[in-house]
Amino acid sequence: MSLPAYDDQNVFAKILRGEMPCFRLYEDEDTLAFMDIMPRADGHCLVIPKKPARNILDVDADSMAAVMRTVQKLSHAVMTAFAAEGVTIQQFNESVGGQVVFHLHVHVLPRHTGVSLRPHTGAMADKAVLEANAQKIREALGG
Amino acid sequence: MSLPAYDDQNVFAKILRGEMPCFRLYEDEDTLAFMDIMPRADGHCLVIPKKPARNILDVDADSMAAVMRTVQKLSHAVMTAFAAEGVTIQQFNESVGGQVVFHLHVHVLPRHTGVSLRPHTGAMADKAVLEANAQKIREALGG
Repeated sequence: MSLPAYDDQNVFAKILRGEMPCFRLYEDEDTLAFMDIMPRADGHCLVIPKKPARNILDVDADSMAAVMRTVQKLSHAVMTAFAAEGVTIQQFNESVGGQVVFHLHVHVLPRHTGVSLRPHTGAMADKAVLEANAQKIREALGG
Repeated sequence: MSLPAYDDQNVFAKILRGEMPCFRLYEDEDTLAFMDIMPRADGHCLVIPKKPARNILDVDADSMAAVMRTVQKLSHAVMTAFAAEGVTIQQFNESVGGQVVFHLHVHVLPRHTGVSLRPHTGAMADKAVLEANAQKIREALGG
């Protein structure tokens, strides 16, 4: 079974190189976290490794471990920032697995009772709302 | 924000102590993988840490890293075992986040074009089918 190679023209690679903007939440040596601009829940954010990896099938274990440390930080932060009662974590691999951007990313979705995840519409959320939610998460991260 | 403490009477704690059976797939010092008995896709399996953790909000980072190493092994194995084209990874935290058993677990779901995830019905799958699928995964793991 051979998988496609990493393509460095994907959107997240461009964000990592500073060629595209993002609503930045957190950064360390190995990972970057930013807002999902098509949020399925208020505060929906993403964590990616800085090291190129297509998905779970080719990422190196240390890079994945670093991603999960940041996912854990962001999970706590969104619980605080949005008074969430839980968090849903999703990570999609290959198109059929739900992957759209081919740089490994983990979705962190704050959850509230009675609020379903919104469908993935492909429409970008209002920038002011994204920035306001980003700021809440940054504050919860102690930034 | 205080979260409930770990309760060692959950089903996965009982599996870890050998008090309940499972369709075992893989085990190492830090993790155990076994079949989800209410599969949302053929070959749907679970990875858990051996060290008690309720979910992403209290797991220690090393334990989570070990879980993800095993998730990666299982992802490759289900791709091979079921000629899958992708893998969906899910990890639920607290009831509102989709969590049912309160011992941290990661879902590994092999995916095929045109096949949606089945709804979570709460009904156990046929044991012979679960065992046959488990055996395919064990073989793909090189067991």
